Amino acid sequence: MRTVDQSLGELAVRFGLVLRGDPDLRVSHVATLAGGSAGALAFLANARYRRQLEATRATAVVLAAEDADLLHPQPAAEPGVHPTAVVSSRALVPRSAAVAAFALVEDGAEIGERAFIGPGCVVQRDARIGADTRLLARATVCAAVRVGARCLIHPGAVIGSDGFGFARDGGAWAKVPQLGTVRVGDDVEIGANTTIDRGAIDDTVIEDGVKLDNQIQVGHNVTIGAHTAIAACTGISGSTTIGKRCMIGGMVGFAGHLTIADDVAVTGCSLVSASIRESGSYSSGIPVAGTREWRRTVAQLRRLDRAPRSAGSRNPRSDE
Amino acid sequence: MRTVDQSLGELAVRFGLVLRGDPDLRVSHVATLAGGSAGALAFLANARYRRQLEATRATAVVLAAEDADLLHPQPAAEPGVHPTAVVSSRALVPRSAAVAAFALVEDGAEIGERAFIGPGCVVQRDARIGADTRLLARATVCAAVRVGARCLIHPGAVIGSDGFGFARDGGAWAKVPQLGTVRVGDDVEIGANTTIDRGAIDDTVIEDGVKLDNQIQVGHNVTIGAHTAIAACTGISGSTTIGKRCMIGGMVGFAGHLTIADDVAVTGCSLVSASIRESGSYSSGIPVAGTREWRRTVAQLRRLDRAPRSAGSRNPRSDE
Amino acid sequence: MRTVDQSLGELAVRFGLVLRGDPDLRVSHVATLAGGSAGALAFLANARYRRQLEATRATAVVLAAEDADLLHPQPAAEPGVHPTAVVSSRALVPRSAAVAAFALVEDGAEIGERAFIGPGCVVQRDARIGADTRLLARATVCAAVRVGARCLIHPGAVIGSDGFGFARDGGAWAKVPQLGTVRVGDDVEIGANTTIDRGAIDDTVIEDGVKLDNQIQVGHNVTIGAHTAIAACTGISGSTTIGKRCMIGGMVGFAGHLTIADDVAVTGCSLVSASIRESGSYSSGIPVAGTREWRRTVAQLRRLDRAPRSAGSRNPRSDE
Repeated sequence: MRTVDQSLGELAVRFGLVLRGDPDLRVSHVATLAGGSAGALAFLANARYRRQLEATRATAVVLAAEDADLLHPQPAAEPGVHPTAVVSSRALVPRSAAVAAFALVEDGAEIGERAFIGPGCVVQRDARIGADTRLLARATVCAAVRVGARCLIHPGAVIGSDGFGFARDGGAWAKVPQLGTVRVGDDVEIGANTTIDRGAIDDTVIEDGVKLDNQIQVGHNVTIGAHTAIAACTGISGSTTIGKRCMIGGMVGFAGHLTIADDVAVTGCSLVSASIRESGSYSSGIPVAGTREWRRTVAQLRRLDRAPRSAGSRNPRSDE
Repeated sequence: MRTVDQSLGELAVRFGLVLRGDPDLRVSHVATLAGGSAGALAFLANARYRRQLEATRATAVVLAAEDADLLHPQPAAEPGVHPTAVVSSRALVPRSAAVAAFALVEDGAEIGERAFIGPGCVVQRDARIGADTRLLARATVCAAVRVGARCLIHPGAVIGSDGFGFARDGGAWAKVPQLGTVRVGDDVEIGANTTIDRGAIDDTVIEDGVKLDNQIQVGHNVTIGAHTAIAACTGISGSTTIGKRCMIGGMVGFAGHLTIADDVAVTGCSLVSASIRESGSYSSGIPVAGTREWRRTVAQLRRLDRAPRSAGSRNPRSDE
Repeated sequence: MRTVDQSLGELAVRFGLVLRGDPDLRVSHVATLAGGSAGALAFLANARYRRQLEATRATAVVLAAEDADLLHPQPAAEPGVHPTAVVSSRALVPRSAAVAAFALVEDGAEIGERAFIGPGCVVQRDARIGADTRLLARATVCAAVRVGARCLIHPGAVIGSDGFGFARDGGAWAKVPQLGTVRVGDDVEIGANTTIDRGAIDDTVIEDGVKLDNQIQVGHNVTIGAHTAIAACTGISGSTTIGKRCMIGGMVGFAGHLTIADDVAVTGCSLVSASIRESGSYSSGIPVAGTREWRRTVAQLRRLDRAPRSAGSRNPRSDE
């Protein structure tokens, strides 16, 4: 048995692992899950041994990310409909699903096997929630929205609110009916208080494996490609298509009717106002400086368009 | 009968119409609503013929925006109070109004004729909701807030939360009571998870016909002029007044205590930190570039305030 | 008796007071609280006289901010559990607390003395709510979150949603379980639709006296120091620590893993992408200009990194 005696923090850094737990804990040797004791570092490489996870006494276990939940299982919701929930007799709720207190499932809605409709959630008429999907609390899934399997929807999210569509009507605005819906793929996560508008005619589409952080706004007829991840507070205007496997920072603004290629990264606080045709990393955020210094910079910036075209022009003019 | 044989898309572009439906459908002739059949383009110009809309067999109908809903009517909510709703005996709810499951209407609240208080909505004490206004789901209308007629309030909106008012009290903050309320005019739309704070002393005012997209923040004592439209994620700091018929893009930030003229447009991701006295279009958003290129630009930007005042100065100095 | 005859507005400006009420009201003399009548300006300097506030007839009273609420008391909620609320038999709710309609208090949750759990609020398993804290309506406090005493939590706030943690797993994302929680100190205010994520391993921490405006996003493992105030729509990425007594403007974006010193001010619409070691005021927001002028400025900005290093270089080149 080889002795390692290293901290978990050191091991995680050295091998590029995501560490969950105390980085100061030390391990001294490698062992099997079943045989591990204090000081042991165990491995789970074969799904057959998953059951040993719960009972292992090893100090740490190296395992695939998708197995990590096995160490920290979410308490499963009891199947069944809470006595205070309201479920339409014209809705489909399988016996394996759970509908919590003050949840509402309207006419024509269909809930998948083992799905969880959390407390205070509203699933409106004809909406469909896939198998094993969990609406944690106080989420709203509007009429006719389709949500795939194994999704996780955080409190306060709204899926299927009207898109922002108005036509000038004299001095006022006439509402353009929003007749499409939202289609959410499988394995999608939608953050707290994020809002996704339904399409005007066609649908808004969130493809498989997309991860949306909190307080994101997705406009009508947007498409977000598979496995794209978007950080909090970003807003995407109507009819923009974002490619697959993109990584979008927080507080990014997308104009409408754009096409963003696959594998694009956009750093936080940027503005995307034109389509991006090539994968790569894009930015327009400006980091802070001292306020006084920054004001001078802004003053100089304003003077740029009054400056001579060529810095070394032969015919200089004072621009003061 | 003149034959046109054009696609709806072509017609919409040519005549500047908002098209709802399949742009590839083709029409070959013009007909009345009653007489229209496949291939017919019909018109609704006189309200007397509205009833024919539902039965027309024309391929497309040209009509005013405000009539378009007739083609796609919202299912009317059944009047009445859902058995799970809680309505104070000291609230006024007319027979024509609908109060949905898990909705709460507190003491002194007054609900207008044919109004809809959706599932999970909270209408707090002394609030007033106008005729034909619909709170779709899980909206909160706080104490003493007034909402006009024919408004549409999307899920998760909060109208009348406290303004952000604190006074320094040694090293801590003392709360300044927020004693005003919010007055929302007629025909206002308020998007999902949008928040509107009550005034500190006077009221926050949203005038008639204003359209607010999702996740907008309106600070205390703000006034938004009639028929102004604001896109998602914009924030308006306290005591700012925005004029009438303005069009504000998404993710715009307004400082407090400003006055913005009528008919002002602000493009997305801009910062408005001073009053705007003249109508026109204003911007300060910077579109993305490649991240590496952008970093060079920012580095050069920082050097601007160290640069010589006149680019063609006779007394050049190296600023390196 | 000295006659002053000044408007409240004039007095407030002259003495730097926060005025609540009509600035045009005039006072003519100074009097005690008990003896004050129309035209009197009274003072409350000694807590012993607080009871006289309610009955005073003085036109205006000068008092400490923390006493101002005494003039405008919030109607106290009746203690007790509303018949429609659902409170687990394994939760602790003292008799002095109030649980409103459609509120849910899950297993193991503990509610403090005189706390108010407003309508539609969800307090999940093992969460703890301190004495005198008020959840106004439709707020969600997730599992195991701790909220201190005398906090005020506005409608739609979500405390303890999962942090945004995913690990690359081939072309997809594997969720990193979020095993920490959120600890909120005493006297904290949390605005409408603000979201605070639970920590991944350690906790997210909001220290005593912090004031958060509406629609703020706080990422996992963030710490916000005591008495810091943050304006609406600001987003703080994971693992960033903000110091004490900071004042952060609206719509500011913080990158992750930063350390911000105590007593830092950041003006609105700025991006903080590196740690700030010294107190002071920081900015990077650019105020709007006319759109046409702004476009020219952006075009010039883009050319900066192609410009000669020294503006007065001896070897000028045309960059056109």
